[in-house]
Amino acid sequence: MSKFRTVRGMRDFLPEQARTMRYIENLARELAKLYGFKEVITPVVESYDLLAAKSGEEIRQRMYAFKDLGGRKVALRPEFTASIARLVATTLRNEPKPLRLFCAGSLYRYDEPQLGRYREFWQSNFELIGSKNPEADAEILTLTNDLMERLGLKNYWFKVGHMGILRGILGEEGVKEEDQNLIMQRFDKKLWEEGLKILEKLKVSRKCLETIKNLMKIHGTKIEDVLGKVKEKVKDYEVSVSAVENLEEILNLTFESGVKFEVSIEPAFARGLEYYTGIIFEVFTPELEIALSGGGRYDKLIELFGGEPTPAVGVAHGIDRIMLAMEKQKIKPKLPEKPLVVIIPIEEDLKSKALELAIQLRKKGVCTEVEVMRRTATRALQDADRRGATHTVLVAPKELKEGKVVLRDMQLREQKAVDLEKLPNEILDE
Amino acid sequence: MSKFRTVRGMRDFLPEQARTMRYIENLARELAKLYGFKEVITPVVESYDLLAAKSGEEIRQRMYAFKDLGGRKVALRPEFTASIARLVATTLRNEPKPLRLFCAGSLYRYDEPQLGRYREFWQSNFELIGSKNPEADAEILTLTNDLMERLGLKNYWFKVGHMGILRGILGEEGVKEEDQNLIMQRFDKKLWEEGLKILEKLKVSRKCLETIKNLMKIHGTKIEDVLGKVKEKVKDYEVSVSAVENLEEILNLTFESGVKFEVSIEPAFARGLEYYTGIIFEVFTPELEIALSGGGRYDKLIELFGGEPTPAVGVAHGIDRIMLAMEKQKIKPKLPEKPLVVIIPIEEDLKSKALELAIQLRKKGVCTEVEVMRRTATRALQDADRRGATHTVLVAPKELKEGKVVLRDMQLREQKAVDLEKLPNEILDE
Repeated sequence: MSKFRTVRGMRDFLPEQARTMRYIENLARELAKLYGFKEVITPVVESYDLLAAKSGEEIRQRMYAFKDLGGRKVALRPEFTASIARLVATTLRNEPKPLRLFCAGSLYRYDEPQLGRYREFWQSNFELIGSKNPEADAEILTLTNDLMERLGLKNYWFKVGHMGILRGILGEEGVKEEDQNLIMQRFDKKLWEEGLKILEKLKVSRKCLETIKNLMKIHGTKIEDVLGKVKEKVKDYEVSVSAVENLEEILNLTFESGVKFEVSIEPAFARGLEYYTGIIFEVFTPELEIALSGGGRYDKLIELFGGEPTPAVGVAHGIDRIMLAMEKQKIKPKLPEKPLVVIIPIEEDLKSKALELAIQLRKKGVCTEVEVMRRTATRALQDADRRGATHTVLVAPKELKEGKVVLRDMQLREQKAVDLEKLPNEILDE
Repeated sequence: MSKFRTVRGMRDFLPEQARTMRYIENLARELAKLYGFKEVITPVVESYDLLAAKSGEEIRQRMYAFKDLGGRKVALRPEFTASIARLVATTLRNEPKPLRLFCAGSLYRYDEPQLGRYREFWQSNFELIGSKNPEADAEILTLTNDLMERLGLKNYWFKVGHMGILRGILGEEGVKEEDQNLIMQRFDKKLWEEGLKILEKLKVSRKCLETIKNLMKIHGTKIEDVLGKVKEKVKDYEVSVSAVENLEEILNLTFESGVKFEVSIEPAFARGLEYYTGIIFEVFTPELEIALSGGGRYDKLIELFGGEPTPAVGVAHGIDRIMLAMEKQKIKPKLPEKPLVVIIPIEEDLKSKALELAIQLRKKGVCTEVEVMRRTATRALQDADRRGATHTVLVAPKELKEGKVVLRDMQLREQKAVDLEKLPNEILDE
């Protein structure tokens, strides 16, 4: 056996998986075009400091970080937003806003491998940069819903919250940003008790603790209902109230425009990435515990990276996770079935004729393989059958003398002699 | 200014570059389908030992190698073939042959950054696995030529050689494989004198030295002519003679099948990768000194990695380099021009109507942006013009009451009121 294998947590996509993966990636790319997002490609290797700046403690500890041969501390990107924010703060600094940027590619985190979690994973990523308005947030929600619909996913829902709700309370209580981040990390992992313990240690007011505990109990699907309750609970925290109103406006705008999806509004919902400042959301399906997509508003990151103050909102769709959800829901990529032709020269000196025919068929857009193993016609036919060929073309001396080849329909198991010049149409017309 | 930037040797593709890059990648992917190659996706991070095994000294020294958090020595792949050979030696071990595998993605080498050479670069890669016959080599040459033709590249040529010619001579002289590799490295870099010095140190026969020096002088475009001369020079080296005959058969077969491209046959041509055993080739254009594509036959690699003895031949196309060649030859991607619509609500409370219209247009396949900056109609129109919108749609209260919006043709600078339900067709019918 081979002494070589994939590195733990890394994996190969075999043809069927690769096909689904590219299908999702291309659907996202098509959507990007439809929504006016331009693709950019940023490197997998970035400076460690950039990636570490606002990714949050957990991701920082799990980065693939190392020194390159020039002694620079670099890392493999664990997410896209830092790179996009860097690009907007530097090269695209003077581009008129809004900027709509799309990217898709592989990302790296040293997580414990488990269902839907690999150390190399794939995302498509959308960032709408320059607008602070709720219609920008609505566009990101709409686009995400559109992707789920086009994929054919069923029973998904959006878990929605707003960073301003908790941060508004904690800010008012004078909790420092680093401490706020620590608490958000715990809440993101649903370690509610741990988060509350940190708060107790910080000696926040009893009212603060009670308010947050109350928020944890609230969740529901009816916007007015849930957000009304939340507003009541946070009414003494001005920033939190604005956050609730902002969330309400975004959701109302989205649904008024005719978009339909299930929401679960959770005011104590937090995300691990530290850069979020506004709405945050994740998409779930009943079959998986991990989110398929996640996103939110981050109005301070570009400025932090040295750019102008620039509000922004974005979303990342986990391609691997969507693949898994499609598998669970038994959804196949909607790809056209095309003919596949195998050309078999039945004598050695007909090889170049077989190659020539293949070139002609491919020019007409027909997927064509040539038998390159020099097997007997019988064995080559069996193999063509096994690999799903719809047609085979036998190049034989007798027929070739009359300007013909033998075209075999592999499904019908019928064959006939066909004029060379009529071959492409015979195959395409079926 | 931002303290963050891309790491030296890494770069961002801005929208126009990304578009060209994806265009080439997708053309290669389309070609893969046409030729019956199935896509696989292998990880960027592989075990160092796998990647180091046969990549050659130069690449080994320039790998991005590091220990992961589990203490494993890993590296970022500097090329695709090792990963594909691993896959064939392990997971795909029992798959019937031939296997035709395609992959495309990013690769990493710590080279000195220069024109067309980046530390992160992109390739599309084709491997035809399981056939030792010249028709397999011919398929790889044909496919490579097909890609160049479809891209619209002009005046390119194939530099062609065969590893068996030099290795046949050196083997007969008892030069060990490691020493052969050292010599090939020098020849690959065109450091002919250095290569010859190593030979002198190894005390090879005068005949051997003379033969190799003679081979260095031979090159030309006429198969029969050049290979006739080569065969005469190497006539006492049996393996070398077979190599020349193999090369002759591959080239004749390719051209007999109707494919046309320029060749420069160079019997002393070597490539840096150590795994090649048969034909080797590179594609050049007059505008660039670096090869656009490179490939060859490697019949021992899969066995070396623990698989069955499996002959194979493949090619990698440098997407970055092709981009550069296209730029030099002023070739633009052949992509369809599509309408781009910007929807502008002229009052704030028409936002959701604007979003709704955008959703409807996108459902019909029209690329549509919504004004999210809340600018005046005049400024929003200027911005739509700047970003190349073909149409704008003004959502205004007066027209909306009559079930209409104002559609403006940005090229003709004409506008008219259009019924809401007729809007998509008005845009698409032009």
